[in-house]
Amino acid sequence: MPPRDVPDIVVRRLPYYLRALALAAQRGESVVSSQALGAWLGVSPAQIRKDLSYFGEFGKQGMGYEVAYLRDQLRAILNADRDWPVVLVGAGALGTALAHYPVFSSGRFPIVALFDNDPAKVGRRLREDLVVQPVTEMEQAICDRGISLGILAVPPEAAQEVAEALVACGIRAILNYAPIRLSLPAHIHVQDIDPVAVLQSMTYYLDS
Amino acid sequence: MPPRDVPDIVVRRLPYYLRALALAAQRGESVVSSQALGAWLGVSPAQIRKDLSYFGEFGKQGMGYEVAYLRDQLRAILNADRDWPVVLVGAGALGTALAHYPVFSSGRFPIVALFDNDPAKVGRRLREDLVVQPVTEMEQAICDRGISLGILAVPPEAAQEVAEALVACGIRAILNYAPIRLSLPAHIHVQDIDPVAVLQSMTYYLDS
Repeated sequence: MPPRDVPDIVVRRLPYYLRALALAAQRGESVVSSQALGAWLGVSPAQIRKDLSYFGEFGKQGMGYEVAYLRDQLRAILNADRDWPVVLVGAGALGTALAHYPVFSSGRFPIVALFDNDPAKVGRRLREDLVVQPVTEMEQAICDRGISLGILAVPPEAAQEVAEALVACGIRAILNYAPIRLSLPAHIHVQDIDPVAVLQSMTYYLDS
Repeated sequence: MPPRDVPDIVVRRLPYYLRALALAAQRGESVVSSQALGAWLGVSPAQIRKDLSYFGEFGKQGMGYEVAYLRDQLRAILNADRDWPVVLVGAGALGTALAHYPVFSSGRFPIVALFDNDPAKVGRRLREDLVVQPVTEMEQAICDRGISLGILAVPPEAAQEVAEALVACGIRAILNYAPIRLSLPAHIHVQDIDPVAVLQSMTYYLDS
């Protein structure tokens, strides 16, 4: 069980700590300081120490963190030490690109089913192990397979309806690429990926 | 000039406020309460009031916000009231998908140049107005055009080198899709888009 009352903003930083530690381990480093981690991630060392303190005592004062140990602990905390099969809806250009991401084909988040409502796309084989199925088969195809994660790569006008169908099939977390805010029950986890919002948060700083 | 000392986390929320207000305006709403905005965005009304207070007095107590006025103010604050031409590096599946996003073809962030180092991709016409150019021509092609924004959709092992080349050409902000942390001068704005990190921040909450 995760500790309670960890701010979501802290949880969102943990994957970046994990990635940095996994890379440090690959480079053969056994110990890393919060200063080095912070410099690499653009986060203050104090922030890193505070974030990690929600989950236990991982470093000794002045000694740094044991890379492999902290990596494994973060993997366990994030439930990243197991595979999470994913259902993808939308086989357009974005969905096709996602299906070929290494992490979504052979990594920890394998896309195991792919749906679209366009008859021209249904039946297309996007990977050796992945054929586009019609959305009408979605419920039957995923309901009993215990899939928790869904990715939405559909046009904004279709996103709400598809999201509700995913939730009805037992999906508990949705990565939403459609530029709309989904309205779903509070226990469903939704995160948006919106490059426009990210670009706008940078043009704020560019005054000409 | 933007006000100083606005936390970056506040800046990152503003595009979502803007999007909600633009939609409300499209629906013909003239006034919106912080409660309604908050419910729609999953942010507390107090947070919205506090975030906006960095930039001035936009609402009267108990009266809500004037939709069109606040939308226009946020557009001005985010510098979203003008076009920001973008250079894209990487013409693989992801880059191709991005080139066809409406916002990147006919919207406020037009992709005006596209580069790749793969001879098989160079010369390919991805849009009527967009042909893949060799990376070797990047400097000459963009240095004198006053482009501030770059999007990196290249493999991780190429990302650092390409990012440095973009900065040398005058790029001031980079949207980075490669799953590595770029090391660039402090005045360069970089935001990562990493679906794996986002998925991991959700599987944290899924304990089985």
